[in-house]
Amino acid sequence: MIDLQTLGKQAKDSAYQLGLLETAKKNELLNQMADALEKRTDDILIANTLDLNQAEENKIRDVMKDRLRLTPERIQEMANGMRQVAQLPDPIGNVDKMWKNTDGLLIGQQRVPLGVIGIIYESRPNVTTDAASLCFKSGNAVILRGGKEAFHSNQQLVQILQDALLEAQLAPYAIQFVDDTSHETAKALMQLTDYLDVLIPRGGAGLIRRVKQTATVPVIETGTGNNHVYVDRHAQLDMAIPIIINAKAQRPSVCNAMETLLIHHEVAPFFLPKIEEALIANQIEIHADERAMDYLKTALPATEADWSTEYLDYILAIKVVDSLEEAIVHINKYNTKHSEAIITDNYGASQKFLKEVDAAAVYVNASTRFTDGYVFGFGAEIGISTQKIHARGPMGLHELTSIKYIVYGNGQIRH
Amino acid sequence: MIDLQTLGKQAKDSAYQLGLLETAKKNELLNQMADALEKRTDDILIANTLDLNQAEENKIRDVMKDRLRLTPERIQEMANGMRQVAQLPDPIGNVDKMWKNTDGLLIGQQRVPLGVIGIIYESRPNVTTDAASLCFKSGNAVILRGGKEAFHSNQQLVQILQDALLEAQLAPYAIQFVDDTSHETAKALMQLTDYLDVLIPRGGAGLIRRVKQTATVPVIETGTGNNHVYVDRHAQLDMAIPIIINAKAQRPSVCNAMETLLIHHEVAPFFLPKIEEALIANQIEIHADERAMDYLKTALPATEADWSTEYLDYILAIKVVDSLEEAIVHINKYNTKHSEAIITDNYGASQKFLKEVDAAAVYVNASTRFTDGYVFGFGAEIGISTQKIHARGPMGLHELTSIKYIVYGNGQIRH
Repeated sequence: MIDLQTLGKQAKDSAYQLGLLETAKKNELLNQMADALEKRTDDILIANTLDLNQAEENKIRDVMKDRLRLTPERIQEMANGMRQVAQLPDPIGNVDKMWKNTDGLLIGQQRVPLGVIGIIYESRPNVTTDAASLCFKSGNAVILRGGKEAFHSNQQLVQILQDALLEAQLAPYAIQFVDDTSHETAKALMQLTDYLDVLIPRGGAGLIRRVKQTATVPVIETGTGNNHVYVDRHAQLDMAIPIIINAKAQRPSVCNAMETLLIHHEVAPFFLPKIEEALIANQIEIHADERAMDYLKTALPATEADWSTEYLDYILAIKVVDSLEEAIVHINKYNTKHSEAIITDNYGASQKFLKEVDAAAVYVNASTRFTDGYVFGFGAEIGISTQKIHARGPMGLHELTSIKYIVYGNGQIRH
Repeated sequence: MIDLQTLGKQAKDSAYQLGLLETAKKNELLNQMADALEKRTDDILIANTLDLNQAEENKIRDVMKDRLRLTPERIQEMANGMRQVAQLPDPIGNVDKMWKNTDGLLIGQQRVPLGVIGIIYESRPNVTTDAASLCFKSGNAVILRGGKEAFHSNQQLVQILQDALLEAQLAPYAIQFVDDTSHETAKALMQLTDYLDVLIPRGGAGLIRRVKQTATVPVIETGTGNNHVYVDRHAQLDMAIPIIINAKAQRPSVCNAMETLLIHHEVAPFFLPKIEEALIANQIEIHADERAMDYLKTALPATEADWSTEYLDYILAIKVVDSLEEAIVHINKYNTKHSEAIITDNYGASQKFLKEVDAAAVYVNASTRFTDGYVFGFGAEIGISTQKIHARGPMGLHELTSIKYIVYGNGQIRH
């Protein structure tokens, strides 16, 4: 088994160095790492071929193989992603608030890095450079543990980033890779309490559950989104249709896509046939409850399991509800606290939905697809937190920081 | 074993109700709970006597017995503490920031409760009402698990608070007590991932370590403080003496007291005799390194263990260092990331110390004793976080909240 203690110690030492680097230096290093990725495109492609061959042997699905595949263009995108992170404002060192207390102490809340961040992730190799650059920019050392499917690609990518840091002789172990994909090592990483300040899992529901049950280091859960759109009795129906199609069909495989549509019974009779037409035109399969079935031609009957399924596919569950209250109860029972939307023109309904629905992002008259760090204006994101501790919703650079109280006195003692 | 699943479920349901209560209603209930405490003073004293008798049998130290002892005055203080929390501003519902993104969405960060908070704590029964009132005011349900020494007192206190809630028929299980002090139950509570949003241990280093190693629910570590004061070569020595005496002797048993004094070698020869005199006048025993011993009359030789000991007692370790850099290295190696201070009149030294020392609170020319929620202006505190995730330093009502993004649209879809 790999020596995680050594990795942890190296990360901690590097984190301290990195935490003290000025922004200009961090940006310079990010740009150097981006250049190195482009320069060594061939090395990356060779490693990626190993992964693709293995995927072939293991008869991995085409869609997964596509996620895995790197091309010179995709490598350039990864490099450009790092350059963009270099251009984002650096949160570290900023003082959010500063006030004078009754003793005359000047107390400031200054942003500092978290320290050492672990990331456990699946499949796509671009997560490697995305996560590495966001952690680096926010002054954190990172220990990356990718999935076995992209093992060779990830290993090569981290090697290149590390070479660039070694060359600059600055925080050389700020970016490290766990080159062991065994479950034992994953478990040991989840319990590396002496070194990891936080662990962020990025992947499917199974991974998130495993991490949640096993990890003794602090975890920020990300990702799964069993999201709803509720069409209220006071909805503008011509606004509802494009929002529903967008939330479901624009990119069904992502966590902010809609999975269940709830419809007030008063609008169901005339709205359901219309939305069915639009959904069919977008190749969406419908799983409907009994009441909705009355107004639908092509739907399959929904079962209890449908309400808690995150399809991530061209499938939509539909349910008719008697009231806004019933919609809210259904959502709070089945959702994964990610993104929820109401379509309404009623003021009271909008306020009630915003207040009572428990989710990271709650929308009035907009698609759930907007839950995203770029869209929210954070410049980037390392994931979308569905828990309440530390960060909730899209996590940008700010969410990768903590605070330190800096206190300026002139001889104060406590009475 | 107690049925923690039921407790958890009840807490979750109550948390949802409590999260929707208006501030005025929460305040009214806090005041009613305070009244109930006073009204049932006799019941509390009877329960407390059971604990005190048990302490007597177990030959508990007098200082511990004093912490355990309740009197009508102390019960009134607890009630008044609850009334003070009622008067604090309610963070829930406030929108910290709101901005318009490029799609025209109005995006707001609204404060919401964390949900269900677990508190594992030791000895003092006033923690019961303090923690309960802070969690309640911030809209969180709480599950309290106190130490066995104060079992009867804690149980009775929670019973009274719960009776008041039951009478009002509002969120009756918002405050619950684990009436089982076994280690198995404590462990099960630390792993109650389905219901606990966060667990806050309050107690000694042993408890904190056990929670950190065992808990799979999110934890906010609190408390232990192996704190330093560094007297720089540019220190105003007449300012240093009162700060050192205050940091060490004003209340040695608390986590923000100083444990090790570091002194620049240039000032050691004339400063050490002076500070020894002041320390002796305050009944402080000195454990000094070899270099410091040269200038001290009464000190015992320090061993390696002294540098990492949180005495919480009338003992101080003293070490002479060659430079500011050496002081910072020593502090970052041995401290528990709580509170650190430099005494200096040099601008560069102050800035370097503030930047490079890793701790929740870093002071220039002030006593470490100020790290406290009341002193910082938060009105109250539930503990002092020594970790970086979610909250760092004194935790007030704000630190018991999370956020929800509320998003106002008018038909936006994602492109």
